[in-house]
Amino acid sequence: MRKRAESLAILQSLRSVLTEPAVLHAPSFEGNEWLYVKECLDTGWVSSAGSYVERFEAMLAKYTGARRAVAVVNGTAALHICMLLAGVKKNDEVLIPSLTFVATANAVSYCGALPHFIECAEESLGVDPAKLESHLQRIAEVRADGTYNRTTGRRIGAVVPMHTFGHPVDLDTLAEVCRRFQLELLEDAAESLGSCYKGRHTGTFGRASALSFNGNKVITTGGGGAILTNDDEFADAAKHLTTTAKLPHRWEFVHDLIGYNYRMPNINAALGCAQLEQLPGFIEQKRSLAGLYRTAFEGAAGVRFFSEAPYARSNYWLNALILEESRVDLRDEILELTNQEGIMTRPVWTPLHLLPIYSGCPRMELPVTESLGRRVINIPSSPGLGKGGSPCP
Amino acid sequence: MRKRAESLAILQSLRSVLTEPAVLHAPSFEGNEWLYVKECLDTGWVSSAGSYVERFEAMLAKYTGARRAVAVVNGTAALHICMLLAGVKKNDEVLIPSLTFVATANAVSYCGALPHFIECAEESLGVDPAKLESHLQRIAEVRADGTYNRTTGRRIGAVVPMHTFGHPVDLDTLAEVCRRFQLELLEDAAESLGSCYKGRHTGTFGRASALSFNGNKVITTGGGGAILTNDDEFADAAKHLTTTAKLPHRWEFVHDLIGYNYRMPNINAALGCAQLEQLPGFIEQKRSLAGLYRTAFEGAAGVRFFSEAPYARSNYWLNALILEESRVDLRDEILELTNQEGIMTRPVWTPLHLLPIYSGCPRMELPVTESLGRRVINIPSSPGLGKGGSPCP
Repeated sequence: MRKRAESLAILQSLRSVLTEPAVLHAPSFEGNEWLYVKECLDTGWVSSAGSYVERFEAMLAKYTGARRAVAVVNGTAALHICMLLAGVKKNDEVLIPSLTFVATANAVSYCGALPHFIECAEESLGVDPAKLESHLQRIAEVRADGTYNRTTGRRIGAVVPMHTFGHPVDLDTLAEVCRRFQLELLEDAAESLGSCYKGRHTGTFGRASALSFNGNKVITTGGGGAILTNDDEFADAAKHLTTTAKLPHRWEFVHDLIGYNYRMPNINAALGCAQLEQLPGFIEQKRSLAGLYRTAFEGAAGVRFFSEAPYARSNYWLNALILEESRVDLRDEILELTNQEGIMTRPVWTPLHLLPIYSGCPRMELPVTESLGRRVINIPSSPGLGKGGSPCP
Repeated sequence: MRKRAESLAILQSLRSVLTEPAVLHAPSFEGNEWLYVKECLDTGWVSSAGSYVERFEAMLAKYTGARRAVAVVNGTAALHICMLLAGVKKNDEVLIPSLTFVATANAVSYCGALPHFIECAEESLGVDPAKLESHLQRIAEVRADGTYNRTTGRRIGAVVPMHTFGHPVDLDTLAEVCRRFQLELLEDAAESLGSCYKGRHTGTFGRASALSFNGNKVITTGGGGAILTNDDEFADAAKHLTTTAKLPHRWEFVHDLIGYNYRMPNINAALGCAQLEQLPGFIEQKRSLAGLYRTAFEGAAGVRFFSEAPYARSNYWLNALILEESRVDLRDEILELTNQEGIMTRPVWTPLHLLPIYSGCPRMELPVTESLGRRVINIPSSPGLGKGGSPCP
């Protein structure tokens, strides 16, 4: 009875914000999408040539403040290339959160390296820099040729935090830990386009970062991603490696590396340009929606609405409710009830160290990750939902 | 003087077919492209969900006669997945032509395997089954757990012919060689959508095959590819592995393999549906153009127009001139002259065993490949060029 009543109360709070059935995240195409896509079709430039890729890259660099952006076929490809170019090698370990979408770990695997799972902070839902530091103090050894995990003998190739649901991790503190242990910082910013840490855009703190424009993201290109970096050499190498490593020539086919076919097609970039023009508006709408949810769940029993940290201005990509540990048994009932009622909700990803494919990988103790894995519920987050709210301050 | 005169004669023959400047291959969007793409934008289904991907797959299967088609992000991804699912393993060798686009070899590399380069036939520009057979007689040993290269000790994972410029290799003979040596046959059909071997569509002879819909191909999806197979289990596995290996569930994220983000976005599939509707017309136009070129180059000195083999009905994706060995010194002058005049031409790919990245790989003697590498010139091939020709019989 208690369970049922509490679940119904949560449904009621959601309904106070959402006036109709809602999916988790739907894109909005109310700008120049038609115009730009039609131009691709009319000119025949839909593929690897055409002006929208360069234009999209320039717009992304300008918006994020990164020196360079390289558009690619999706966020997974962006992560893969970031790791390869940052020097991740076969049999390295790469420090990543366990609480992330599987692509973060898969990109590590594509390099022939192993994910080494690190703990999350309840405050950011992302990497906990303090716990990472004490873990590294126990296991890491800085040698002339790299930082090693002395318990496994493997080199540590990089640290790759992910900004969960758009909420930035504590980047200053994390960057300092990386510096101290001489580790490359790469950001998995797949979910955090439009999110800032102390006024600076996520994805611009490490050597490079990966964005995603999948259909459920804050902006979409159908499928797509990008690499951000402040390093021209890194950007040039990324462009080269993602376009089959072909050397420029009028007609000869000479490839000087084993490259990838990871370029973003022009038609998808055209969509991206139109979407990016609207991003500031989307973020405002999404922050308004978050404000409404926050109010609706103020004082709710057993559950809180996840709000950005004081250092953050989040895009609130996916809004999240966090159940109290004592209310974990409510989760599946809430998921059932809300989805039945047409309000789409879902839990967070299964923590990756619990998947058989990654359960043998090195890791820290992960009690917060495991707890969050049972307690997070994502709720509808499309821009335009819950109109009438005022934005998060 | 002889060189100049012969180059000018070739330019003159090209001009007799092409009435205006022409690129090598431009797509044509005169069907339902805008209608279908606009529907994606209007409904918001541009990405991983939406009906065009399934529709495109069904249309591809019907057109090619393959039991199943799985749409993916590009031809390279299709090749990669075909090899993985056919059992290509780390340190295997995969038999591929040296005369192919670098993607064929790169896909082998992504599996951790090594390309083993095989010779081409002057008649098909693709794998020479007779030479492959004598090579295998020298080096191959069929053991209980696979066929091995006894000179290197490595297992041979598969044979992957590529149908150069759309012209089928001698598939019956090649398939027989594969059977005799118990080798998996996978077809790189990236260039041969619409091409048949003895009335049966290329890409349906081996365990599976890879198609490409890059912007320069006979139909385009911006960027895209597909896997064809007659094996339902293979197709299901391909779909699973290309969509992050996520198990179906209402909301849980469980991935049971290290999968890939290789799915084709719905907006690209929409373009593909519209293009595929027009494919029979494109092929007719391209075969007409080939007929005009063939006539124009009949009796030309030192050069021949490459025509399909008697067993083939080719899509004539890229038309090709083949210089006589004694005229190799003409090639660069012809390339200069034609490109200067706005008639885009290019040589064939640098044979892969000549690229430093692949020069250390095992291989046969490759005199025909090396000779063709110096003698092939591709000429403008877009559907709609040279109107007024009658199709190749």
